[in-house]
Amino acid sequence: SGNFFLLAGPCAIEGEDMALRIAETIVGITEKLEIPFIFKGSFKKANRSRIDSFTGIGDEKALKILRKVSETFGVPTVTDIHEREDAQLAAEYVDVLQIPAFLVRQTDLVVAAAETGKVVNLKKGQFMSPESMKHAVNKVQECNNEQVMVTDRGTMFGYQDMIVDFRGIPTMREFAPTVLDVTHSLQQPNQSSGVTGGRPDMIETIARAGIATGADGIFIETHFDPANAKSDGANMLDIQYLERLLSNLTAIRKTINSF
Amino acid sequence: SGNFFLLAGPCAIEGEDMALRIAETIVGITEKLEIPFIFKGSFKKANRSRIDSFTGIGDEKALKILRKVSETFGVPTVTDIHEREDAQLAAEYVDVLQIPAFLVRQTDLVVAAAETGKVVNLKKGQFMSPESMKHAVNKVQECNNEQVMVTDRGTMFGYQDMIVDFRGIPTMREFAPTVLDVTHSLQQPNQSSGVTGGRPDMIETIARAGIATGADGIFIETHFDPANAKSDGANMLDIQYLERLLSNLTAIRKTINSF
Amino acid sequence: SGNFFLLAGPCAIEGEDMALRIAETIVGITEKLEIPFIFKGSFKKANRSRIDSFTGIGDEKALKILRKVSETFGVPTVTDIHEREDAQLAAEYVDVLQIPAFLVRQTDLVVAAAETGKVVNLKKGQFMSPESMKHAVNKVQECNNEQVMVTDRGTMFGYQDMIVDFRGIPTMREFAPTVLDVTHSLQQPNQSSGVTGGRPDMIETIARAGIATGADGIFIETHFDPANAKSDGANMLDIQYLERLLSNLTAIRKTINSF
Amino acid sequence: SGNFFLLAGPCAIEGEDMALRIAETIVGITEKLEIPFIFKGSFKKANRSRIDSFTGIGDEKALKILRKVSETFGVPTVTDIHEREDAQLAAEYVDVLQIPAFLVRQTDLVVAAAETGKVVNLKKGQFMSPESMKHAVNKVQECNNEQVMVTDRGTMFGYQDMIVDFRGIPTMREFAPTVLDVTHSLQQPNQSSGVTGGRPDMIETIARAGIATGADGIFIETHFDPANAKSDGANMLDIQYLERLLSNLTAIRKTINSF
Repeated sequence: SGNFFLLAGPCAIEGEDMALRIAETIVGITEKLEIPFIFKGSFKKANRSRIDSFTGIGDEKALKILRKVSETFGVPTVTDIHEREDAQLAAEYVDVLQIPAFLVRQTDLVVAAAETGKVVNLKKGQFMSPESMKHAVNKVQECNNEQVMVTDRGTMFGYQDMIVDFRGIPTMREFAPTVLDVTHSLQQPNQSSGVTGGRPDMIETIARAGIATGADGIFIETHFDPANAKSDGANMLDIQYLERLLSNLTAIRKTINSF
Repeated sequence: SGNFFLLAGPCAIEGEDMALRIAETIVGITEKLEIPFIFKGSFKKANRSRIDSFTGIGDEKALKILRKVSETFGVPTVTDIHEREDAQLAAEYVDVLQIPAFLVRQTDLVVAAAETGKVVNLKKGQFMSPESMKHAVNKVQECNNEQVMVTDRGTMFGYQDMIVDFRGIPTMREFAPTVLDVTHSLQQPNQSSGVTGGRPDMIETIARAGIATGADGIFIETHFDPANAKSDGANMLDIQYLERLLSNLTAIRKTINSF
Repeated sequence: SGNFFLLAGPCAIEGEDMALRIAETIVGITEKLEIPFIFKGSFKKANRSRIDSFTGIGDEKALKILRKVSETFGVPTVTDIHEREDAQLAAEYVDVLQIPAFLVRQTDLVVAAAETGKVVNLKKGQFMSPESMKHAVNKVQECNNEQVMVTDRGTMFGYQDMIVDFRGIPTMREFAPTVLDVTHSLQQPNQSSGVTGGRPDMIETIARAGIATGADGIFIETHFDPANAKSDGANMLDIQYLERLLSNLTAIRKTINSF
Repeated sequence: SGNFFLLAGPCAIEGEDMALRIAETIVGITEKLEIPFIFKGSFKKANRSRIDSFTGIGDEKALKILRKVSETFGVPTVTDIHEREDAQLAAEYVDVLQIPAFLVRQTDLVVAAAETGKVVNLKKGQFMSPESMKHAVNKVQECNNEQVMVTDRGTMFGYQDMIVDFRGIPTMREFAPTVLDVTHSLQQPNQSSGVTGGRPDMIETIARAGIATGADGIFIETHFDPANAKSDGANMLDIQYLERLLSNLTAIRKTINSF
């Protein structure tokens, strides 16, 4: 369709009913706008600030829900993995394995993902330059897996803020399809509460800039009730605003496709 | 016209012939694209890294050239001032007084500019948050001058790089019309040579993101021969690429105007 | 004495009595500890965030107080200047002219200070690398004034915080005597109130690190009643803690002198 | 002895002979200076920038060398772990389990280390504030393991540089013994070669500031021939300079112990 693609879903898989409802809503919107859609959900959350943060409903249970979403709506799925042993397990259920930003320098993990033959989505570390992501991409390719993409989720700016460096979009597109994660790019980490904050009012600003600068895809976490989501509520988009956002981004994409 | 406005010209006024030729070219492009145009040229350069850097051709000589550009093409002009006494002098020749980023915290200078009654363009300090520019805007308004705009020219990121934080565009638009300076935002300061470097290949990337996020204006330094310009050659746009750039930005602007 | 030297005093000269009392107290301490002392006071404050911030008691009035401190206690004095015309005026009253960090790239101002023949103290811009201060030092030396020193006052770290990069101390000592300003290095700028915040609890931490890494001098603003000081109250040291601090720093200095 | 403690050794265990020779040299120096010493060596390197970087000589082989060092010289040992399954294995051989900076947010890994009952050394993430390390410390303590310390190894400053924020030393000491890693704090990451650079000339500067600000321990990687070390050669200290450095630091420590 010439449009950008979308990785979207809740942050974590909280239950089957919730996953199916979110997927159904996004499928409806993306079919109308001709946006290729990959359903996203974490099957566990391993890197939380506090030990009492939500970590998941059970690994296989969550992965089976991802498979059910895929079968029900005919869409591919993506989930993130945190240890080598997760790679093979998750690869049985999903189409894209995502390496979290904090872990993208762990060679063993990247190689384990690459060796499954699945698409690998490498999140740019908050501490990495766009240029340096080339080394992570190379690690996947050296496993004879050419299906690799990168996702920018912002860069540390002081202790408690992040900035998206849009020079990174064309820079990373030179070596891999490049996605902008508009949810985590707006995090405000290291808050005194131990719970990461955010700027959800800036989602459309960041997303528009991403599409205008040539991003191949957009990553958004969305929920019917962000305030009560079990993780990342501070940045998730209320799903009622999703269609309007994607419609605007599609219009910008059509414009730049004409250049 | 609903289009963004443009502040453009050479970095410094190097001579009358050069100023008129640059102005003529930009006027031709901006009339076609219905872009309101303000001709920009510095009448002196006071804040150079090295004492042997170019500082100008003579203050009044340069200001008279700015007036001639204005009279010849019927366009307003903008120049930057560095000391209180510059304000009254420059105000006799130009329409917009610009406060350089390094000087935007100098209350006396801002007040002197405001008191001329001219439009004041406040560059955001590389060390300032978008939110904190509100205090600088207030200083102009407290002099009973409501004609004030702000210009983002990037934010320090480490010693030798700058990033544009596009969250700043909607943030600053809440208190003043907001311009994105795509030339200085791409500077790479503190190079060991004592001459600031740049990333001119990123001009269109940054400019597109600016228009997509709602910037009211764009600031570009341009020259027929950037490599031989007397200052800021590392980031100026070769004027042969200007029409294509402005045409693309106009298309994005029309798209977001339709939202 | 082999000891470090001290630039200290209130932020701004608020009145003669206050200046003399602060000077007397510091003279008493520094004579005992054999610390060469330069009394510091601003005769005006030009770069405040807000237009309603305190800007001074009158230029000549404040300068005369500085001269009186010098005559009364036999100590040299330092003040900061903000415009070229300040240089000659201030040079009639004080021994050291200080260029504020925001203004250290203003060649005209640096040259005006250098040409008075007085000692010039260049504050490192919050946006400058230690290495790049060499260019500012060169500007003074090219005016045939070899009496130049540099002062680190921290480097921007995100929008609302500063960090001291102690690698800068030996780096800058290669081209000029180097002072650590422990007051402004602890500023927290861009606060939403428009009034800069601070971390005065960290004064001794930063000061000890400065002396241990070889700083030639320490700059401290101090006051009998920081909470009621007319500027910079957020970071000034309560003068009752000054002797203990300087005594500890002197002990560290003696230790590193023995290496 | 009242002195600081030292974690030191080569970056990676390259072989038994080399490990024993380095340990013997450090033991000789630290006994003379009364510095409690913990021998450090990585048994594998999992987080290299490039897939062709050195990753180790074999896990158990390297761990057995660590045990031999401990038995030969009567010193405790520390090694870093990268996956949950490493914790139990490494705990059979060493006294301190270290969590790498990139992994300190991985709750599962921190918990696995804590549950071995060994001392846990948590490296501060380059993207974390000193304050936020409290949450990581809490995760260890909630496993009923009070033997936890933290190590600062610098904070990202732009893409290609790091700074040590010495305010972090007293801040982290409020919740755990705090070590300064003078080797990794001087890394210069994201270099275009894919090999991290460094500033080994600044080791003593950073180390002195650490001891002066109260660090409980110092972490140094050292080698007989840094230029030919299999990893981190850019920052390791040539072991011939170690005694002089530790002697100077001991003198500063004695001075501040007297305050």
